[in-house]
Parts: sequence; C-alpha cells; structure tokens
Amino acid sequence: MVITSKNNDTYKFLKNLKEKKYRQEYGLFMVEKPVVIEEARDFMPKYIAINESSYKENKFKDIIKNIEEENIYIFSDNIFKNLCDTVTSPGIIAYYKEVHRNFEKNHGKFLYLDDIREPGNLGGIIRSAHAFELDGIIISPNSCDLYNPKTVRSSMSSIFRVPIYFMSREDLVDLDFNIIATALNSSTSIRDYKFKDKDIVVIGNEAKGVSEFLMDNADSYLNIPISKTVDSLNANVAASIIIYEMMK
Amino acid sequence: MVITSKNNDTYKFLKNLKEKKYRQEYGLFMVEKPVVIEEARDFMPKYIAINESSYKENKFKDIIKNIEEENIYIFSDNIFKNLCDTVTSPGIIAYYKEVHRNFEKNHGKFLYLDDIREPGNLGGIIRSAHAFELDGIIISPNSCDLYNPKTVRSSMSSIFRVPIYFMSREDLVDLDFNIIATALNSSTSIRDYKFKDKDIVVIGNEAKGVSEFLMDNADSYLNIPISKTVDSLNANVAASIIIYEMMK
Repeated sequence: MVITSKNNDTYKFLKNLKEKKYRQEYGLFMVEKPVVIEEARDFMPKYIAINESSYKENKFKDIIKNIEEENIYIFSDNIFKNLCDTVTSPGIIAYYKEVHRNFEKNHGKFLYLDDIREPGNLGGIIRSAHAFELDGIIISPNSCDLYNPKTVRSSMSSIFRVPIYFMSREDLVDLDFNIIATALNSSTSIRDYKFKDKDIVVIGNEAKGVSEFLMDNADSYLNIPISKTVDSLNANVAASIIIYEMMK
Repeated sequence: MVITSKNNDTYKFLKNLKEKKYRQEYGLFMVEKPVVIEEARDFMPKYIAINESSYKENKFKDIIKNIEEENIYIFSDNIFKNLCDTVTSPGIIAYYKEVHRNFEKNHGKFLYLDDIREPGNLGGIIRSAHAFELDGIIISPNSCDLYNPKTVRSSMSSIFRVPIYFMSREDLVDLDFNIIATALNSSTSIRDYKFKDKDIVVIGNEAKGVSEFLMDNADSYLNIPISKTVDSLNANVAASIIIYEMMK
C-alpha cells in the first residue's frame, strides 16, 4: 500500500523525526545513504521508508530483503521528499534506534568533545576515531546533535562502529582517568607526549576552545604545535591528528 | 556616491566575479570575511565593495582607511546582496589579485593535490599547510577552483600565506623531486617513513584516489595506517595528517 496523504499518521511521525526534539523523544535517527544502510546491516532498522518509484524498480531489494514487511513503508514520490534531509535523496530512509552507550569503562583511550558545534566536525571526528580505532568518543551535553542528519552523513557508517557516550564535564573529571586539555599555549606538544591507557583528551568548542571548567580541572595540558601566525586548526583536523597520535 | 542600479557597469563587473570564468579572465577573487581582510592587510585589494548601511555606520573604517577612495564602491543594501556569496554577509567584499605563483623551487616539501574536488577540503588543506609551515601546495589543473568563495572561506586567511602553485601531472613527474603517492595498500606507513627535503606527497581525488598516471609514475608509495573496516579518511583530514608528519 502506497501512502499518499500528508494526514497519514506514519508519514507525520517519520516527518517529525527530522526534528531533534522528536528524535530524542522516540530515540530514533535517520540514515539516507544506501551504502551506509548496507554497511550497517548488522543493525536492524526500526522502520524503512521508500519512495514509490524506487520500490517499483526494486532498487533496494538487497537492503529490504531482511527487514520485516510491516516495518517497510512506501510513500508516493511527492510526499516522500518531505521526509528527506537531502535534496537529492536516493529514495530510501532507514530509521535506527540511538546507538550511544553508557560509559562503564575503566580503561582505554578516549576523546571528550567539549561543546563541539558543527555537525560536520562531529561526524568527521567519529569517522577518524573509527579509522584509527580509538576506544570511543565522549560528548558533552551541549554539543551539537549526534543524530543530526548532517552528523550522521559525515560519519559515513562510523556512527555504528565507534562507541559513543554522553557525559557532563563534572562527571568527566570524577572519572578515574587522566583528563588532558588541549591549549595553544600549553608547553608540552602532542609530538612529545606518550599517550597511554586511561588518557582522555578534551577537544574544545570551535570558537571558544576548551571550557574554563575543564581548563581548571584537567590533569595535564597539551598543544598541537602550529605556526604562531595561525589562530587554530579546524576542529575535525585537530581532533583527527590527536587521535592519530594517541593510537600510535 | 551610492550605486543603486543593476545597470551600473561596476556592479555588473563585480557581480560577474562570482563566476569562475570571469574570475579567471580578470585574475581576481573575492573575500567576504572582515577578519580575513584585516589579516591580509599587507595585500592591497584591487576593489572594495561596501553596502550603504555599513558605510554610513563607518563599520569598516579601519579596513578602508588605507585604500584609495577611487577603489571603494558603495552599493545600496538592496543590490549589494547580489554581489555576495554568503547569505549573511557582514557588508563588505574585498577583491584581490590571484595569489598563486610560478613553481621555481629546487628544495622544500610540498603536497600535490591530484584532482581534489571539494572546495571545503582544498581550503582546509591550505589552512593546515599554513599551520604546519609546509613549503607549499601544488594543485592539478582539474582540481576544484582555488578562488571559489568556499575555498577561500575555508582557508581562512591562509590562502594569502601558503605558496600555491598549479602544475600538470606530467610536469610534476619531470621535476627533480621525490614523488610519493598515497595508497591504502602500500606497504610503508607514513608513521615509519622519514620525510625529507624534496618530497612531494600526492593526495588523490575524494572518490577515486590518486590517478593512474601518478600511481604509475611515483617514486615511492606510502599509506596512512587505518582500520581495515574503513574505506578512507576525509581528504582534508588525510592531507592534514600527512602534512603534520612531513613537518615533524
């Protein structure tokens, strides 16, 4: 059955998931890239939305063959586009349960993102964490939305692979881990520091850097050695270089 | 005198510079960020465009005080917005002469961008090259436009600081330099290689990697050691990590 009406309840429900407050309420997020849906095949989507023309062409048969029919919804092309975040949608959206976890680790190396703002940066950092096999990413509550479609897109399928946690700054400093703040004027360079188990490196906000609270409460401080004539690196680049050094 | 008509010749000329073909024809490019215009103060803009309300508020007096009055054009707010690339323009645009140079080096360490496609990546790589004081960036002729407003924006003011060159692949391999291709399946890791004077590292296209021609004609090959479960790194991240290693 093809859903054609904007008054349909499933249509309205899925359309709402484009907004953060509904994503949070229902604990769901959307993936629009077929290749990512395929790479995440060990994660079962809760719902699949397909547009009518793709369905008729059998375009996504490999993706949907393992999914229960009652969770697959077909929409007329005309209203399907309202469910998409991208303008050039391939014609399918998979909706997954949130993938973040509870932090119960007592070893490993992690990054703490201290109010990171750009979904593209957050997604990129997750992708680099996956590439260099970091043990996980911990995100401050006021960072941008992990489940923003742009974050998900930039992470490629790494959002499904990297352990991701949420934690307040206060809880972070209470952990029995070594909290390392990154600061341009710190005297030790990441080139000289030997990263070890239980290190958590704090990456600051794109404009403001690491928060005062974590600057005051960090156990140690590191800099990325850059030219004095440059204000800063891109947050994704800075975090990726740190992950690269941590996992040496 | 405030220009209010879309038939004004200067208006038409500057508006054309939003397009690559006119930028190339006149050898000019635009910068919209006041902080970048200030940081580039040792480069004299050929023209400055300001919107009427900013001009009346004297908002950019520090920027324009050193610029000859005949090169400053005031536009009504209504038509000024058509000159901008960004939707939320601060109200000023500076037009500069192209900054790329002729390659006449016989030492130094460089990156060669082999058909890089994303202006955001190109700008980001230039910013990282500046941060780690790489000797320069060489760009293949089919890469995205160096003077695209998005490239310029992502480079911050680094486009004015990093030596930038254009060169064909054929000319590149004719140089008396060591051409190093990056390839996932290469056996030597950038972690183990000692970068030296006269190394030029080739960064491939976002989708296709390094071109067949440069894979065939490289002197050596390096990989960035990433997890087998990841296809690739973001091009800006990969290039930035390589620059970071090169300039150790």
